[in-house]
Amino acid sequence: MSFVFTIEKKRYGQPLNREEIRAFVRGAVDGLIPDYQISAMLMAICLRGMDAAEAKELVVAMLEGGGTYDIATDVPDAVEQHTTGGVGEGVDLTLLPLLATVGLRPTKLTAPAIGISSGIIDKVDSIPGMNTQLDRAGFLAVVRKVGLALANHGPDLVPADARLYALRDVTGTIDSVALIAGSILSKKLATGAPSMHISVKYGRTGLVKDRDRAAELAELMATVATAMGRRITVPLVRFDGPLGRALGNALEIRQAIELLRGGGPGDLRDHIVAMGAQILHLTGREEDPVAGRRLLAATLDSGKAYETFCAWIAAQGGDRRYVENPALLPSAPVKLDAPSPADGVVLDLDGRLAGALTIELGAGRLRKDDPLDHRVGLVLHKRNGDTVVRGEPLFTVHAPTEDAGETARRRLAATYEIGTGTPRPMLAEEDVFGVGRMAFTARN
Amino acid sequence: MSFVFTIEKKRYGQPLNREEIRAFVRGAVDGLIPDYQISAMLMAICLRGMDAAEAKELVVAMLEGGGTYDIATDVPDAVEQHTTGGVGEGVDLTLLPLLATVGLRPTKLTAPAIGISSGIIDKVDSIPGMNTQLDRAGFLAVVRKVGLALANHGPDLVPADARLYALRDVTGTIDSVALIAGSILSKKLATGAPSMHISVKYGRTGLVKDRDRAAELAELMATVATAMGRRITVPLVRFDGPLGRALGNALEIRQAIELLRGGGPGDLRDHIVAMGAQILHLTGREEDPVAGRRLLAATLDSGKAYETFCAWIAAQGGDRRYVENPALLPSAPVKLDAPSPADGVVLDLDGRLAGALTIELGAGRLRKDDPLDHRVGLVLHKRNGDTVVRGEPLFTVHAPTEDAGETARRRLAATYEIGTGTPRPMLAEEDVFGVGRMAFTARN
Repeated sequence: MSFVFTIEKKRYGQPLNREEIRAFVRGAVDGLIPDYQISAMLMAICLRGMDAAEAKELVVAMLEGGGTYDIATDVPDAVEQHTTGGVGEGVDLTLLPLLATVGLRPTKLTAPAIGISSGIIDKVDSIPGMNTQLDRAGFLAVVRKVGLALANHGPDLVPADARLYALRDVTGTIDSVALIAGSILSKKLATGAPSMHISVKYGRTGLVKDRDRAAELAELMATVATAMGRRITVPLVRFDGPLGRALGNALEIRQAIELLRGGGPGDLRDHIVAMGAQILHLTGREEDPVAGRRLLAATLDSGKAYETFCAWIAAQGGDRRYVENPALLPSAPVKLDAPSPADGVVLDLDGRLAGALTIELGAGRLRKDDPLDHRVGLVLHKRNGDTVVRGEPLFTVHAPTEDAGETARRRLAATYEIGTGTPRPMLAEEDVFGVGRMAFTARN
Repeated sequence: MSFVFTIEKKRYGQPLNREEIRAFVRGAVDGLIPDYQISAMLMAICLRGMDAAEAKELVVAMLEGGGTYDIATDVPDAVEQHTTGGVGEGVDLTLLPLLATVGLRPTKLTAPAIGISSGIIDKVDSIPGMNTQLDRAGFLAVVRKVGLALANHGPDLVPADARLYALRDVTGTIDSVALIAGSILSKKLATGAPSMHISVKYGRTGLVKDRDRAAELAELMATVATAMGRRITVPLVRFDGPLGRALGNALEIRQAIELLRGGGPGDLRDHIVAMGAQILHLTGREEDPVAGRRLLAATLDSGKAYETFCAWIAAQGGDRRYVENPALLPSAPVKLDAPSPADGVVLDLDGRLAGALTIELGAGRLRKDDPLDHRVGLVLHKRNGDTVVRGEPLFTVHAPTEDAGETARRRLAATYEIGTGTPRPMLAEEDVFGVGRMAFTARN
């Protein structure tokens, strides 16, 4: 049957069945369905949506013909931690070693980031020698040795995702709950961890802007992953960040080391501990979220998580001296402070712009093959709610050149609102879907 | 700016401006925008719609870069008659000579039909010698001589329509009010007639199935054409046809000759007269619809319209003997009657299937280059509301072979409902948009 009838079915809002979804995904991957039909279908899916049964079939179809790490066979207690991303949302650098320290097996297979969300692969690449190109055996060896591992899963893990994403990117069809769920879950399921924790961030710096759509995405992923036999927790987080003070690769490694030594920005520490407690609950390690948070905070303060971090970096080939002495990490040639023009409280700053400027300075990429500068970024000394006196630095730009630094300083400084009103909150953990729903919703 | 932003704008339901619509149409025609982006945009337009201002810009953009016949320069009182089509809706064969007989200048530039709607070009091609490949000068010479002319405008009149239609056909995006309006109006405006009458048929055999969408299409075309300085009347007609008894090329020529001689099926004659009266009103020839209908009926009965028809066919090279003696017209080798299985009244028959079977017999085409058989088709002796006695023929299949004829006979006969209830009405003239709106609505 011609694929045009399948497009029309979705166009008129009817759910597609397994065979239709399979034919779509397979036809997209093997090129039997032309791009113009794939993109018409993607737009119809964006505007008509997919129900949970269709989203599950989409994930199943995307997994067919791809590889799998099948981690559960060797690490039956593996847990995969993921976020839909946000500006300055460098949770995993701290959270993964922290979880391993208390006996969990966080395994992370991911890809370098594109756009304003942060990518842990790029950050650890700031450390000389660090190797994230691990094959399955190498990956498992690191997990066995230090309790966690991180690898770049490469573009071949789910070929359908690469193919569909490339078309979505140029046809205005990125922002679809069903297509986002399919993209994330197909990759997470292909790694084979039996448990997964996926934060959905919405708000100014989130992938999805609107709360209802973010909640829909969270619920859809929880439903589909559960139907496919996984344990999953999906927290819904309002995020008008940045969270933490550092934006950039080496700068975020420095901040993670502070956190792992019991210091660091309080808001980021609190969020890491809250997310970690959900994962303790998800894996059955600690059912009570209050006790879970207490355990994780104490583990940070004890310095043991920092030791795990150092062991992990070394196990993946990283030069341990750079994490023991972060002053050795790559450092930008130009550092420019932005002095506060007034006394008062920081009421807001444009976190989205901060993310965009970080990329412009060279710390991120807009396209897959853009080069990346590990040295540069922003350190936000003052964020929403912080008191500041005139002349005190609001932030420091770590720039490759004076010109680039000056531009970033001027543009971000212009977004600071300093006064006496109520600061805009940067983060709120709002709801939990999947495992732990009741426990965590009750807490909120 | 990248076209992806324009797609996203429409995707989120925002109206596009002149420059965006122009860039879209121009990019589609010159190939600068790839097919996959065009088709994503077409689907977004289908599902988000376009308002009247956008539809007007679409028509304007489609006209750019195409040709024009600019008929108004030479025939300032030219009127263009068009229908969105339906099964057995052979109005124009009779209506055009009828209008010319009472002093109007009906000029018709069209293309061979694809699908179940009838195409006047294909029908007159049943008459040996008939030439519809007229250039502008030849076309105007025929109008001057006999008061009407018919020509195939070819695919180059509006290149944007050919390009967009080809993509719509394979991406499930045919059924869009804005895109249909753009396609029809761009071609009608390119011919340059100052007045136009466009019937929108909806129902079982119509292009648009749903009344609300058909009314939306009618109103949109009236609004846009008026904004572009044309006089336009757009009747909305519920059509669960077939109208008339004949389906097929030579068979419909025969039926038209009967009508032009004052005979023929009453329902088709009434509809032709009603549409004609709207055109008399549109052109200012006769403001009163009742007087207009009376004039046209009398003109049919007088035989003068038949004389115009013969003169017209001859003026375009057709062999006059074939219309003076229709028995000479191409005739199918196999004629099979379908006897009624019962006494009673015909309550309904499947007009859509009748149209599809007519194509299957060879009288129409599903693709542009399919060959066509002028001999074959169906003659429906009994239609909704007709009384029938057992054994009396319900219809006759005019087939190329016994097998093809037998299949068509069996399939259509199975859809006849014969009984004692209320027959389903086949046609209702429901509303009028544009010029004559008040006059004709008041009548209904």
